[in-house]
Amino acid sequence: MCDHCVIESVRERMLSRRDLFSAAAGAAAAATVTATPAIAGAHGGAVDMTYTLDGAFPTWSGPPGIIISELARFSDSGFNAKLLTIGEHTGTHIDAPLHFSADGQSVDEIPVENLVCPLCVIDIREKAAAEDDATVTPDDLAAWIAANGPIPDGACVAMNSGWEAHVATSKFRNIDDNGVQHYPGFHIEAAQMLIEETGAVGLAADTLSLDIGASQTFETHYAWLPTNRWGIENIANIDAVPAAGATLVVGAPKHRGGSGGPARVIALV
Amino acid sequence: MCDHCVIESVRERMLSRRDLFSAAAGAAAAATVTATPAIAGAHGGAVDMTYTLDGAFPTWSGPPGIIISELARFSDSGFNAKLLTIGEHTGTHIDAPLHFSADGQSVDEIPVENLVCPLCVIDIREKAAAEDDATVTPDDLAAWIAANGPIPDGACVAMNSGWEAHVATSKFRNIDDNGVQHYPGFHIEAAQMLIEETGAVGLAADTLSLDIGASQTFETHYAWLPTNRWGIENIANIDAVPAAGATLVVGAPKHRGGSGGPARVIALV
Repeated sequence: MCDHCVIESVRERMLSRRDLFSAAAGAAAAATVTATPAIAGAHGGAVDMTYTLDGAFPTWSGPPGIIISELARFSDSGFNAKLLTIGEHTGTHIDAPLHFSADGQSVDEIPVENLVCPLCVIDIREKAAAEDDATVTPDDLAAWIAANGPIPDGACVAMNSGWEAHVATSKFRNIDDNGVQHYPGFHIEAAQMLIEETGAVGLAADTLSLDIGASQTFETHYAWLPTNRWGIENIANIDAVPAAGATLVVGAPKHRGGSGGPARVIALV
Repeated sequence: MCDHCVIESVRERMLSRRDLFSAAAGAAAAATVTATPAIAGAHGGAVDMTYTLDGAFPTWSGPPGIIISELARFSDSGFNAKLLTIGEHTGTHIDAPLHFSADGQSVDEIPVENLVCPLCVIDIREKAAAEDDATVTPDDLAAWIAANGPIPDGACVAMNSGWEAHVATSKFRNIDDNGVQHYPGFHIEAAQMLIEETGAVGLAADTLSLDIGASQTFETHYAWLPTNRWGIENIANIDAVPAAGATLVVGAPKHRGGSGGPARVIALV
């Protein structure tokens, strides 16, 4: 993000500032592959790549991304119902092309065929363990291609930086003394390579942003999204899926004109 | 719903009452099957079974189910972002078991394997054209089984009542002079048959409710949901999927403790 508009707007609307990390233990999803006999053919299981969302889940801007308030309680009313107040870019969520463009596809306009994707996982855990500002580079993409073949048309290219290990701690946002965040992301040259040389339609990061946390220019966002490609941030359970061969189904929200929103992301493996 | 708690609560929080049907034309999704080469094996296409959600989409209780407000605009801030205020039971959405039970699974607790389902479509269009209060009965289920074989384990059983044709008109809620809604739903005996004789985990209605609109007792909700089975209401594009053979991926939201919420529902065909 390039200014504080979201921060201030969300802050005004949200009930109160909470300790972002006090209750985040529950945010870590169990990494399990579940047999799913319904999936005929190449796939036999499902992996939930979605964090459970609550007000304690870390956000890019700081304040809680969701407030869940009670509308009806079973013991009083015979049913339960809640009202949700949600910033679009919260939890495991999709960035629609419109998020960083004047007239790109809104979240309801993304074609459904772009939401069912071959999943390519780029493993940069080793360098991310040594360097918080590590990036997925063209060399990392080339190494994946050498091992697995061409990036398929319609693919989602996902970063496994190992950052999920930090989701319940302050290291997930990893703010330095100057207020700058530090975590891995996609280098703009990797985004450009995918745009120029492949038919990939999505990027997915296991961190809070497609760009590194320290980015002040959001150049990967600005290179990628205006081409009517989308991004997922805070993807979960990336260790549970193979480098190649899974199919990602992106349960993006479908509110009119949205710039993105919390998404249920399920991999068929 | 059995009282006005939701109505009043939502009303208080929503900006204003709008004409529910004035802008609903855009709510009707185009019924298309899109080739999806990513899906190996039995499936080769995807159908989006989700309506676009905005404040004009009809709701069970009447007031708008969502308010979308602007947090940042690209021309001013360099990015777009919105804040969403959403009643859980709005648009194409899932009813978690907790919606009509004291301690059933909340939406984040539904096992992922229950969200990837063989889809069985029960066609009651002919009787629903003659009778607004038509129901899916055990006889309808028996006819489907006679034609297609047993209901698969983990299935979602969906009603095609033809009601999608009415989504942009007042007939979708179809309120009589006494304020009672009239549209098709599942008969409690059909729900009981599925619970007792099959491993189905979900029901889906192409109307606003699993029960008929005229129900005052919500007996299908109360029979089905407390068994840790779920429901989808306002499923779209049901004419575009086959009676048997599709796989439904339910992109349910995953907010902690939720009783349900808008879901992206995609069929692999």
